[in-house]
Amino acid sequence: MDPSRLNWLSAADAARAIRDGAVSSAELVEACLARVREVDGDVQAWAFLDPEHALSQARALDERRKEGASLGPLHGVPVGVKDIIDTSDMPTEDGTVLHAGRTPAEDATIVARLRAAGAVIMGKTVTTELATYHPGKTRNPHNPEHTPGGSSSGSAAAVAARMVPLALGSQTNGSVIRPAAFCGVYGFKPTHGFIPRHGVLRQSRTLDQLGVFARTIEDVALACEQLVGYDERDPDTMPPRARIPFVQITTDGPPLPPLLAFVKTPIWDQTEPETREAFGELVAHLDDRVEEFALPDSTRDALEWHRTIMEADIAASYVVEYEKGRDKLSDSLRAQLERGRRITALEYQTALARIPRLIEGFARLFERYDAILTPAAAGTAPRGLESTGSPMFCTLWTLAGMPALSMPLMQGANGLPLGVQLVGARGNDARLLRTARWLAAQTQAEAPDGV
Amino acid sequence: MDPSRLNWLSAADAARAIRDGAVSSAELVEACLARVREVDGDVQAWAFLDPEHALSQARALDERRKEGASLGPLHGVPVGVKDIIDTSDMPTEDGTVLHAGRTPAEDATIVARLRAAGAVIMGKTVTTELATYHPGKTRNPHNPEHTPGGSSSGSAAAVAARMVPLALGSQTNGSVIRPAAFCGVYGFKPTHGFIPRHGVLRQSRTLDQLGVFARTIEDVALACEQLVGYDERDPDTMPPRARIPFVQITTDGPPLPPLLAFVKTPIWDQTEPETREAFGELVAHLDDRVEEFALPDSTRDALEWHRTIMEADIAASYVVEYEKGRDKLSDSLRAQLERGRRITALEYQTALARIPRLIEGFARLFERYDAILTPAAAGTAPRGLESTGSPMFCTLWTLAGMPALSMPLMQGANGLPLGVQLVGARGNDARLLRTARWLAAQTQAEAPDGV
Repeated sequence: MDPSRLNWLSAADAARAIRDGAVSSAELVEACLARVREVDGDVQAWAFLDPEHALSQARALDERRKEGASLGPLHGVPVGVKDIIDTSDMPTEDGTVLHAGRTPAEDATIVARLRAAGAVIMGKTVTTELATYHPGKTRNPHNPEHTPGGSSSGSAAAVAARMVPLALGSQTNGSVIRPAAFCGVYGFKPTHGFIPRHGVLRQSRTLDQLGVFARTIEDVALACEQLVGYDERDPDTMPPRARIPFVQITTDGPPLPPLLAFVKTPIWDQTEPETREAFGELVAHLDDRVEEFALPDSTRDALEWHRTIMEADIAASYVVEYEKGRDKLSDSLRAQLERGRRITALEYQTALARIPRLIEGFARLFERYDAILTPAAAGTAPRGLESTGSPMFCTLWTLAGMPALSMPLMQGANGLPLGVQLVGARGNDARLLRTARWLAAQTQAEAPDGV
Repeated sequence: MDPSRLNWLSAADAARAIRDGAVSSAELVEACLARVREVDGDVQAWAFLDPEHALSQARALDERRKEGASLGPLHGVPVGVKDIIDTSDMPTEDGTVLHAGRTPAEDATIVARLRAAGAVIMGKTVTTELATYHPGKTRNPHNPEHTPGGSSSGSAAAVAARMVPLALGSQTNGSVIRPAAFCGVYGFKPTHGFIPRHGVLRQSRTLDQLGVFARTIEDVALACEQLVGYDERDPDTMPPRARIPFVQITTDGPPLPPLLAFVKTPIWDQTEPETREAFGELVAHLDDRVEEFALPDSTRDALEWHRTIMEADIAASYVVEYEKGRDKLSDSLRAQLERGRRITALEYQTALARIPRLIEGFARLFERYDAILTPAAAGTAPRGLESTGSPMFCTLWTLAGMPALSMPLMQGANGLPLGVQLVGARGNDARLLRTARWLAAQTQAEAPDGV
């Protein structure tokens, strides 16, 4: 195996190669670090990256393998971690100078789970300011003049640029799906409550959902199998039950060809013409395996319910930042927090009360369909770095806490990736990945092109 | 057994007598109905009571016994149900003309559990307006010129006046403890989330807690054993686990003499002189089994946090009543809803965020003490029917969701009951009842005087 190309390996392939002794974790991490040196001057995906610390983790894991220790499913595989997720051995600065130098004593639950699975915590990836809208320094690896999307900008870009095979992100509106779509990787946000959030910067208990970035669906499944599961320190995770065999279900494939619901969403008129054209072709190609499905008009209001909940929640979550450091916040976040502070408890609770009804409505849709097929964004990554683009095409699914996957199946005329979003029934996350694998095979695009 | 005195039986004794064939359920219900005819003209505890319907339930249960059916722990025992708790066979009018004629199709979970245990649903007891502060028609059975307390006014009065041995109530501030104290019965509000609230008028998911009224601690335990337990339709109930053996634990008694924390609360200066004097004597009597414990000053603010949460929540819960029928609400409730509508989501969430810290603080107290000993109210039931008295001495424990029991152990100079409140650690409800039984034995007042 060409050592300089090890960074091209998927996480699953890398783990297999390390397990088999074909490569060492140190060699893999070296290749990833070489790639960082090569491209990260342009991409700037990392908020914190100490090459020596990454290598020393890798060497320790190589030692353990030599000692005959039992190896976790990610043994020796480097993973990027969004810089709002606590790590006991690296700073976690949340994309704001207000948290500069913050060094948590304890790993977030998901970081602890990655380490337990044998992963190397490669470094911390760039987030937008406090995981909201104001951009960080990261650029789109396909074209540095375009946004990578946000808020999990660095995680999406690092995976797309093959600096790591896997990275963690979070989504409160469109912060996993959108950067995955713009950067051309798989981005998966499981059902609300599936991945525990203990040790992660809180914006909104109702909306915050963690997710993963990878270059293959198998890697998404592999990561989820390590990350999903009950944590008593996250009250929204589910009570203990058997571990979901994500990899097995995804690999087995669907028992029958799935049926997809093509949902244009109430904001279809805001998609770019090439998005409409590309989805038209995709739907035609899928033939009788997809039907257009019109959502009720009431879902148009969901954007407003989401805004009310999110702005009220971030006003409460960032009350100290606002009261003690508002001059160090971006104008846009400060304005958002000020709007949030004016929302009444009644407006807030009225918006919250919509969610159960929204969920019930979607539950009926999944009696007929395996998944919803819908755009991940209005189009390809917008030009310019002053905005991370609109999360609107993610809002509805985030609000309802449904599992959503961005798939790098299409391309715009500008050569930038054009994401397809597949949304599943709450709790049926593995089935969604299974359906996604089928869809990727239909479009013969399982492996996205490299950057 | 003198049939005209059957209404004096405790629930446990009545159930035993019915099981043994010494009396029939119909005879017991007849005696209770006779008592209603005798005293309810003065007391007015019932919002709905159809003697024939109660008797026909009793006769059907007597038939089942004759057929050799297995008998539930409350077989044949009549229970009063607060008129905010849905019953499929009687109206549920919530103490407001706005809900007049409301006839739910389905029993609340706790009514279904009572029926499964063999109880006769005697009738619906008077609640204050929408279970808030504006009084219903009920009077104190010890003196009709005094309030019975609220909001579970009818349930407390019906049990105190021996019209039923058991009744259901609810507490969002002091609506179980206060009427129990004023009427001189046991009133128990278990840990938040212990008794499912499906089918009960919602004021506040955070604060609403169901409870029971009885004349003995054994009856409290017996009722709890039927009512406590997981219900998937109340998201705050605990995941399934073994049924708690309330009766066994209460009867066994404590392994060692308990140690109580006498808590004057930050509003001790608002107690009446005879309350301070009575507690002084009780504490002296308990000698080394009680220590005075000073709460941190911050708990004084808990009254304000509670008010913010409760007013914001009732503004959301009663939005239809306010928007469509505010002219039919009492002035005081309308004003309260209007205050609630002005609370911001930030104020609301800031108040909610205090609760976990409050709970943590109390958890430490219970490392040393078995229970908190504190007044149930400022004094005996106030004279007059225009107010149900102050719930302030309950607020802190309700906010923290701790189990609380009002015990009829003392009397004021006016001959009215003076309640002692015993508060336990969250989740240790049976232990609290065990401690209460010990305390009752110390004061030799297990059986309160009749009305």
